[in-house]
Amino acid sequence: MDKNKDFSEWYTWILKEAELVDIRYNVKGFPVIRPWAFSVMKKIYSAYEDELDRNGHSPMQFPAVIPESNLNKEKEHIKGFEDAVFWIEKAGMNRLEERLALRPTSETAIYPMYALWINGISDLPLKLYQSGTVWRYETKATRPLIRVREIQWIETHCCFATKEGAEAQIIEDKAIAETIIGDVLGIPFLFFQRPKWDKFPGADNTYAADSLMPDGKVLQIATTHMLGQNFSKPFEVKFSDSDGKEKYVWQTCYGPGMSRIFAALISHYGDDKGIVYHYQFSPIQVVVVPIYKGENKAKIDNYAAGIMRVLKENDIRAYYDNSNNTPGFKYNRWELKGIPIRIEVGEREIDANKVVIVYRDTREKKTTELESVANDVSQAGKEMFERMKSAVFENMRNSIDKSEDMDDIGKKLDLGKIIKIPFCSMEMEGEPCYEQIKDKLKAEVRGTLFGSEEKPKSKKCAICGKEAHEYAYVARQY
Amino acid sequence: MDKNKDFSEWYTWILKEAELVDIRYNVKGFPVIRPWAFSVMKKIYSAYEDELDRNGHSPMQFPAVIPESNLNKEKEHIKGFEDAVFWIEKAGMNRLEERLALRPTSETAIYPMYALWINGISDLPLKLYQSGTVWRYETKATRPLIRVREIQWIETHCCFATKEGAEAQIIEDKAIAETIIGDVLGIPFLFFQRPKWDKFPGADNTYAADSLMPDGKVLQIATTHMLGQNFSKPFEVKFSDSDGKEKYVWQTCYGPGMSRIFAALISHYGDDKGIVYHYQFSPIQVVVVPIYKGENKAKIDNYAAGIMRVLKENDIRAYYDNSNNTPGFKYNRWELKGIPIRIEVGEREIDANKVVIVYRDTREKKTTELESVANDVSQAGKEMFERMKSAVFENMRNSIDKSEDMDDIGKKLDLGKIIKIPFCSMEMEGEPCYEQIKDKLKAEVRGTLFGSEEKPKSKKCAICGKEAHEYAYVARQY
Repeated sequence: MDKNKDFSEWYTWILKEAELVDIRYNVKGFPVIRPWAFSVMKKIYSAYEDELDRNGHSPMQFPAVIPESNLNKEKEHIKGFEDAVFWIEKAGMNRLEERLALRPTSETAIYPMYALWINGISDLPLKLYQSGTVWRYETKATRPLIRVREIQWIETHCCFATKEGAEAQIIEDKAIAETIIGDVLGIPFLFFQRPKWDKFPGADNTYAADSLMPDGKVLQIATTHMLGQNFSKPFEVKFSDSDGKEKYVWQTCYGPGMSRIFAALISHYGDDKGIVYHYQFSPIQVVVVPIYKGENKAKIDNYAAGIMRVLKENDIRAYYDNSNNTPGFKYNRWELKGIPIRIEVGEREIDANKVVIVYRDTREKKTTELESVANDVSQAGKEMFERMKSAVFENMRNSIDKSEDMDDIGKKLDLGKIIKIPFCSMEMEGEPCYEQIKDKLKAEVRGTLFGSEEKPKSKKCAICGKEAHEYAYVARQY
Repeated sequence: MDKNKDFSEWYTWILKEAELVDIRYNVKGFPVIRPWAFSVMKKIYSAYEDELDRNGHSPMQFPAVIPESNLNKEKEHIKGFEDAVFWIEKAGMNRLEERLALRPTSETAIYPMYALWINGISDLPLKLYQSGTVWRYETKATRPLIRVREIQWIETHCCFATKEGAEAQIIEDKAIAETIIGDVLGIPFLFFQRPKWDKFPGADNTYAADSLMPDGKVLQIATTHMLGQNFSKPFEVKFSDSDGKEKYVWQTCYGPGMSRIFAALISHYGDDKGIVYHYQFSPIQVVVVPIYKGENKAKIDNYAAGIMRVLKENDIRAYYDNSNNTPGFKYNRWELKGIPIRIEVGEREIDANKVVIVYRDTREKKTTELESVANDVSQAGKEMFERMKSAVFENMRNSIDKSEDMDDIGKKLDLGKIIKIPFCSMEMEGEPCYEQIKDKLKAEVRGTLFGSEEKPKSKKCAICGKEAHEYAYVARQY
């Protein structure tokens, strides 16, 4: 199955065959996340949470239900979400006095409590997060892990005394994404400031990480929002500042999408044989496969047991597959499942007192000593990840192009690229150009590169020809 | 605040003052779990999950919603839960074709998928779990962490080829509780087989861990259920056995309650000053408090910075409280918050090149050297936990009594004890005696001690005087 030829087919195939997600659960848009995926997602959650903790955040847990009256308090927010809410109106045999929303996001649950928790300047900054699920009645076509009605994510909610404090948080959110999504997980992305017409309902500005998937469409994998004082005013989240005056806090919220990050991970690193899991994140890091021949089963099992012991003593997650299947069957199975390192144990290895390590990505073999197997395996695992990561990042870099001409943009989009174009405006008045891109090119303006001060050399918008104020990035999207 | 005098008042006080739970969220029975509690609950979740993993379980994630038709498939099950279900009937502006239950427990979500996942004997045993939340429209008076409408727990769902396999799982579930709840967290409990009239809806038998709280009432903190083939038949969870025959699997499910375990933890270990967190689980393990005097601030801060550096290098979670409050205020605050170890840094300590460690439980001081502070702190933390744990377990042992007489049982219950009595029957025919215990003593039959073969010496039931077949334990409960 070639992911570059028909990514959609490959994606469906891998989710099913590698036992990652089961779409047969009988509620549309609510697939089951199976152990082979969820055990990796758990590790991704932990990595992200640890990085949030290191940056001064603390975990909390808010209810999954939000009273309708809370949700209605910020006008733009409810307008943005009202079509997406699952409503609870009954409990047991009783009709509830006020109906409850299954949270589509938690601002309106959390901020009434922040109003109670924050009093003085010493309560700020307040940087909290929760990990878990939100629910949105998505009306577009659903796709497992990518567009679902039950979303696995983390949401942070931060309050600051000043606008500058909140702005610094946006930069920190970007840095956390670069560390965890970029460096640790090896998923390349561009970090955009979204156009005004594409921001989070209730936010002043939205920033987002987009990763270009193998089919040339971008996937939004994390967003962070400058909420300004749009929520602190209706929810009365105030503090008395050191000057004795009562002020509204400045807020940000940040939502890295755990299932989308996982989807990007398997999509960037998978191949025609199956998934390729990162050594650090794989549920099983090494599979040991015996090559029985004639009567040598006890001899092989014994030698393999020695390898397994050494691996486990070194906290390497290893599995000995001594099932009744053929070696070839086992190779295929574990390559499909993406185990990064395979060790083959046959008569020849035993006689030479050697161990053969096979890399999942290149299927190259490397012979090593029994004494150094633990070190060599983890070395090989890291080396393999770095090698693949370089290729994935190189690929992303090569997929960014530029253009100043409508037809040319279309051609490059067809090649699966993200196109940098001179653009008139990210404000609402830019909408006509946005509409043209949408209608004629079936693409979207993803925004300007956050933190870039670069100004267009050509002063003309690639779409309308009027004055261009910035570079915008155009891409097809999920 | 004395927890033994008025536990209920103490419990309310500690949840509020130590900033553990906020009951002001505007949906009844849905309190907010604040960072100072949730960061510890997260560690408890991890400890439990790691132990499940070590025992061959894997994590998964099922949807939070269950179609009504699934829920209706096992007759006793739906009867037991129908009054407790929150129903989703609308999404956005649309009425759903089939209404969805917010899961009150996940058997009827999971088992239709198990029917698809299990085919042959090689698919068994299947041992999976998920961590998260279930929702029950509790009609009794709610109490934060203990009786709520949104429940934090882990649920395991295991399938076996034989009844013996399932029975062995119940024993493993008990052992996991003993390791994590008992040894690691230091919460004493008795593990009962519940009477027939008190089992999980749809189970053959229910087993449960009860911990005796400081007010003499027992709190159920984990349950495990022998489901037999009661679910595998309606949900058609079948496998072809090695004899070629198609058979229904045998099932168990296990639910340790994370928020109840946390409630038991703070209740057993708290005192009149506040919480006492375990060294291993505390969000902050050591608080360093400077004792400024005159102009020595820089000197003290400098010395404290050295201590902080050593602690952090040794991965000890330490916090330097150099806020503007008095030392006395800080002592009270961090004792309330339950930080196990305090280090006081004053002029005297600096001159002697010493460090003063203060234990949270006894408030005893111990002087140590700067070079050995990391080791001494973690030693002190462990020692303190073991000392407290011995007392807590001793207290539990002393609270188990026996009796063969109704009046005497009542007196002992009033003293906050669990009473072992000869009892006629745990089957449904025992219900009249159970009713008497309930009506006259305001207590419950919690069951027989699981794994105990002990038979009553007195052959007469303490309640009805008829033949006694076993020892039952009677207690007041939450």
